[in-house]
Amino acid sequence: MKRNMDGRRLRAGLVGGGRGAFIGAVHRMAVELDGEAEVVAGALSADPQTARASAAAWHLQRSYDSYQEMARAEAARADGIDFAIVATPNHLHYPVARAFLEKGIPVVCDKPLAHSLPDAEALVQVVERTGLLFALTHNYTGYPMVREARERIRRGEIGELRKVVVEYHQDWLKDALDPAANKQAAWRVDPNRAGMGGCIADIGSHAQHLLEYIAGRKIASLCADLTRFVPGRLLDDDANILLRLEGGGKGTLSCSQVACGEENALGIRIYGSKAGLEWHQQEPNTLLLKPAGEPWRRLRTGGSQLSAEGQQAARLPAGHPEGYLEAFAVLYRAVIADLRRAANGQGAQGGYPTVHDGLRGMRFIAAAVESSAQGGRWFDL
Amino acid sequence: MKRNMDGRRLRAGLVGGGRGAFIGAVHRMAVELDGEAEVVAGALSADPQTARASAAAWHLQRSYDSYQEMARAEAARADGIDFAIVATPNHLHYPVARAFLEKGIPVVCDKPLAHSLPDAEALVQVVERTGLLFALTHNYTGYPMVREARERIRRGEIGELRKVVVEYHQDWLKDALDPAANKQAAWRVDPNRAGMGGCIADIGSHAQHLLEYIAGRKIASLCADLTRFVPGRLLDDDANILLRLEGGGKGTLSCSQVACGEENALGIRIYGSKAGLEWHQQEPNTLLLKPAGEPWRRLRTGGSQLSAEGQQAARLPAGHPEGYLEAFAVLYRAVIADLRRAANGQGAQGGYPTVHDGLRGMRFIAAAVESSAQGGRWFDL
Amino acid sequence: MKRNMDGRRLRAGLVGGGRGAFIGAVHRMAVELDGEAEVVAGALSADPQTARASAAAWHLQRSYDSYQEMARAEAARADGIDFAIVATPNHLHYPVARAFLEKGIPVVCDKPLAHSLPDAEALVQVVERTGLLFALTHNYTGYPMVREARERIRRGEIGELRKVVVEYHQDWLKDALDPAANKQAAWRVDPNRAGMGGCIADIGSHAQHLLEYIAGRKIASLCADLTRFVPGRLLDDDANILLRLEGGGKGTLSCSQVACGEENALGIRIYGSKAGLEWHQQEPNTLLLKPAGEPWRRLRTGGSQLSAEGQQAARLPAGHPEGYLEAFAVLYRAVIADLRRAANGQGAQGGYPTVHDGLRGMRFIAAAVESSAQGGRWFDL
Amino acid sequence: MKRNMDGRRLRAGLVGGGRGAFIGAVHRMAVELDGEAEVVAGALSADPQTARASAAAWHLQRSYDSYQEMARAEAARADGIDFAIVATPNHLHYPVARAFLEKGIPVVCDKPLAHSLPDAEALVQVVERTGLLFALTHNYTGYPMVREARERIRRGEIGELRKVVVEYHQDWLKDALDPAANKQAAWRVDPNRAGMGGCIADIGSHAQHLLEYIAGRKIASLCADLTRFVPGRLLDDDANILLRLEGGGKGTLSCSQVACGEENALGIRIYGSKAGLEWHQQEPNTLLLKPAGEPWRRLRTGGSQLSAEGQQAARLPAGHPEGYLEAFAVLYRAVIADLRRAANGQGAQGGYPTVHDGLRGMRFIAAAVESSAQGGRWFDL
Repeated sequence: MKRNMDGRRLRAGLVGGGRGAFIGAVHRMAVELDGEAEVVAGALSADPQTARASAAAWHLQRSYDSYQEMARAEAARADGIDFAIVATPNHLHYPVARAFLEKGIPVVCDKPLAHSLPDAEALVQVVERTGLLFALTHNYTGYPMVREARERIRRGEIGELRKVVVEYHQDWLKDALDPAANKQAAWRVDPNRAGMGGCIADIGSHAQHLLEYIAGRKIASLCADLTRFVPGRLLDDDANILLRLEGGGKGTLSCSQVACGEENALGIRIYGSKAGLEWHQQEPNTLLLKPAGEPWRRLRTGGSQLSAEGQQAARLPAGHPEGYLEAFAVLYRAVIADLRRAANGQGAQGGYPTVHDGLRGMRFIAAAVESSAQGGRWFDL
Repeated sequence: MKRNMDGRRLRAGLVGGGRGAFIGAVHRMAVELDGEAEVVAGALSADPQTARASAAAWHLQRSYDSYQEMARAEAARADGIDFAIVATPNHLHYPVARAFLEKGIPVVCDKPLAHSLPDAEALVQVVERTGLLFALTHNYTGYPMVREARERIRRGEIGELRKVVVEYHQDWLKDALDPAANKQAAWRVDPNRAGMGGCIADIGSHAQHLLEYIAGRKIASLCADLTRFVPGRLLDDDANILLRLEGGGKGTLSCSQVACGEENALGIRIYGSKAGLEWHQQEPNTLLLKPAGEPWRRLRTGGSQLSAEGQQAARLPAGHPEGYLEAFAVLYRAVIADLRRAANGQGAQGGYPTVHDGLRGMRFIAAAVESSAQGGRWFDL
Repeated sequence: MKRNMDGRRLRAGLVGGGRGAFIGAVHRMAVELDGEAEVVAGALSADPQTARASAAAWHLQRSYDSYQEMARAEAARADGIDFAIVATPNHLHYPVARAFLEKGIPVVCDKPLAHSLPDAEALVQVVERTGLLFALTHNYTGYPMVREARERIRRGEIGELRKVVVEYHQDWLKDALDPAANKQAAWRVDPNRAGMGGCIADIGSHAQHLLEYIAGRKIASLCADLTRFVPGRLLDDDANILLRLEGGGKGTLSCSQVACGEENALGIRIYGSKAGLEWHQQEPNTLLLKPAGEPWRRLRTGGSQLSAEGQQAARLPAGHPEGYLEAFAVLYRAVIADLRRAANGQGAQGGYPTVHDGLRGMRFIAAAVESSAQGGRWFDL
Repeated sequence: MKRNMDGRRLRAGLVGGGRGAFIGAVHRMAVELDGEAEVVAGALSADPQTARASAAAWHLQRSYDSYQEMARAEAARADGIDFAIVATPNHLHYPVARAFLEKGIPVVCDKPLAHSLPDAEALVQVVERTGLLFALTHNYTGYPMVREARERIRRGEIGELRKVVVEYHQDWLKDALDPAANKQAAWRVDPNRAGMGGCIADIGSHAQHLLEYIAGRKIASLCADLTRFVPGRLLDDDANILLRLEGGGKGTLSCSQVACGEENALGIRIYGSKAGLEWHQQEPNTLLLKPAGEPWRRLRTGGSQLSAEGQQAARLPAGHPEGYLEAFAVLYRAVIADLRRAANGQGAQGGYPTVHDGLRGMRFIAAAVESSAQGGRWFDL
């Protein structure tokens, strides 16, 4: 069913993300930021009471007790949702996404793509079969200066790529947590819900995607050393990885959820034969450009010296800080634009991670886990 | 007329802010961010065609050719707007705000309060007479770390206040601009629309308000040196001011719109007998606390060590940068909460600048202009 | 008497600066850093025992009980000192410097030049009459990036100078101190030894000199507000000053010795019609250049993009931090080069502050003190 | 022969480091900084003319055409040198050091210890046999904040060590260099003079030593990926290494001499169960302490909150930047103190890297080279 989407805000439905789940509110704020969509329906929690209370708190028009019911009902309504957002723990990504896709409803899904590699591969098939839009929220690629970095490299500004250093350090899992007290932590440290990887899946995959996105080339092989520092933990909470890129670059990827004092320190440095680039998520509006033999230059979100790609991702003049939500909303803006194009019979233009990026992320996780399990042996990706 | 506001998003109407005006989009994104309000109507431009095109682009339900018509029509509708947002050039603040207030519609208004001191005083009277909510968007006080700074001072953490250094430096008016090409600049350098002050009114008043907000005490007197650096300019584009605060503190206020290379560099340092504080709008998620004889401490938006005031103003965990829009939306959140309280017969709790703050800002502007006109003489405020 | 200075290290004599006086050791390390001079004699303290113990600790060849004796004896020796260094409290600058100058011995002297304006003027006369080298240690002008900033402005790189912001904030006098326990603080807060100004003389004059040095233009007039925050203090410990420069620039100068948490925060920003510059003493190896409409550029000590002036002041490759002592030694290097030139009958090339700079500093102090005493009135300098 | 060293500056002799060699001047400035030693003799170059000209430029008392002659002659003089400094390319470290040690003259030597592992082992034996002081200039451990970091960890302040990230990035070898034009580069890229490692030996060994020094524990095993990015280069110019520490910590070591835009970016982060630490050589006066659940604290050289170890390594009050030379001179200060102790028959107190540290560094280099040669296999150290 093709609905007319002209002249109105699109309607979104959210699965998961109810009270106590940080990411649900993020999706709501991000998808609505540009005034191009509104969350109207939700199955916000596996617990029906929480689901309803959360939906009421957000003034949603329709609340469902299960995602299955939501998929069925929304598909049947003339004013049903135009797309679904999946913000559940990892093990539910595949069944929930499939439920909506099978009803003809496009999906925006949290990362990593799935709980396991087979689930991920099955999901790719569903997406390909249905031909529907499927976007994965590697949200950090929505930052204007990330897009600027990618564009500068694409244009050859750094010359031949040589070295990459990508890091993602947090500390919120530095201690053994009481699962009852921390809903977000509980499922992330549980292999049944998170999957084969802990830190490597939760944030390492962000780092891998960011690197490949900006560098414009893929990791060819890796040698990983994953650790469980917190006693009793079943999944890794820290990883150190050597990388070799297709085309010759080398580097390291370090991620940790036990790096005491770090909040959400995702950062990347890329060095080529002609220049280096440096970006940090916690001060996202600055991109350092380090041309050979010249002073560093400080590029800024909203600045007039940016490429078209960098400028389009910004909403405000330079000096008016844009943050996490704005970057997240850049992905949604591209998704919504493609949904409108599809409704008008036009082809997709992209600008957001796809199911194939998600599958690649799963392969990265699997390779890192396997490399480490074998004592730190090189694995091709 | 008291409308029931329970269980629904409030309805807002926007005056000004159509295409090409940066601040209109800011208001729309900020007021809608928390999912507690939606812009449904607008008189977005004095030019009816621009007004309609802008309204359509934002999917507004109702577009008006004039604010007068909008005030009248919305007041008459059962589902009319719950409040109006005034995002026009300064000379229209008073007439537009008055038009809505007289129809019983609360108002959120851009700063400075008015074009002239008499207009400002008249507006205060209208607000007091109608008893309606009136909020002024000194948006920088919405930043979590600004609220944290204020709270730390209120608690006595810096001891006896001694010295303040507040600055607001931009460069976007560093050259004479073609008015046709830059709509935002054009009215700001025109005394007929901006009022008696240029830079001192446009951003100096932000600095004054921020200082008084955080310090919790008022400027008692000032000695100002205002300059028009760009040839042909009719209003100041730079100001250097000495300050004496009620209760004994001293300091400087510097603002400029010709400070080459600066984007939106609002910053403040406050020193007391027991500690200092430092905050910069362009890296808004960090507040430096400098206790006597101890290492500096870096307080962070979303951090667990903040006061209740600081925590409540944040939406995301630490390390997920919040920016300009989020801070702006903190004011709206407080406004909307008070509108809901009023609808339920409850008293206001504040948390946003009022018409009296606006009047004080106008007096600051007038004092600075007059002090400078007299060659830099001290004036009581 | 002209001594041959070729092929050997010069011999220096130090007055003041014995044990417990931070600045004596600084002079010794700085003057010897380049291997072009050695401190061989001293009258290191008014207390003979301290003087001798300090001299022994430094392995000095000759220790004197008084500067008068030292001047007499050294002037008489064939291997006497080539120049004297005056590192005493302010009230002794004039008599000590005069004693050596009258014996034909050049002088390097701490700032401010003297205890009072008449002393300063008298000292100028002695220097002019003797024709000997006299250098004043406004050491901060020895930093490579300060020299680079000056050169960039001299070349016109910032266009027409518009605005300056110069600051010097410390906190070491934030409390009333026990004079017995803190020798350095004791004389600085005592009008009999420090002179008419406290903070304004001790560090304000550094800020004034740095500004005029970099900007290449002089303060034409000022309006000052000096404060004694610490109860019982007889001299100012904080100052806020409006500045008007010759040629049209405006600005502020803020200095404080009670700014809680600040160590030695001397910094300057200068804005012109084409670019801005920013430098901070506590990270002295970086100079920010902010060209209009372009990204900020980060110039670095030792970098290959610097001017000859900037390069000559550096000793190490970029990335090998140079600090306070190295900058101080840049002044000494220029002094020693001029002493060698004089010994060879060549003219001076400068590169260090002179007695005239010192007199100007005294006038600045006097003007600031007087302006403030009159309630903050504008004074020409 | 035991000379009396009381009451005088010690006499040093320098081998290598003549004109055009950056490190010779560094040694001279560093060894003389505290006024406790003076360079009086030198064999500054293999080219006798350069040697003599360099010695004259530094006003040295005695210049030799060869280090052999210098060792013989100085050992024979009553006023001969008290110790020798070896600042030659790597392949000469062993023969030069041995020549002096065999004559009873203590040695301070540049890193890495030797050209090859056998040379290094032989040198250890000479040192042990002679019982003389031998110090290796891993100069970065002389920084006050490095000593502070070590002490904080020693005291248990970071809890159980978990993760280390150590980096040393430069770009001065980013292009193929003309050996004639760059004397310092020429020998470093020549296996005959540099040894088995390029970047890994020149700066990687600094990073390894710094890490083990601060962490207080040793690298147990490593997995290295070394690269020669510049065409035609015979030795590695970049390395990425996984580390496992004795006692359980993990981490990465990255070093590069082709990281475009980096000057001398040595930095380290260490995370434990209770706190993290971060230090960067290019801003050496700040140490960030990141205690779990509390704001970051900024410790500063010269600050009053430091440990005795941190305070003793500083020469100036906080806010007066100390740099590369000052840190280098901290090693010399400890060396000279031990030389004086030895002259008085007292035992050594250390405070500088030893020949055993040097041997360990050589083993690190060898392990990294071998690990990489085998395709990135784990090697025990």
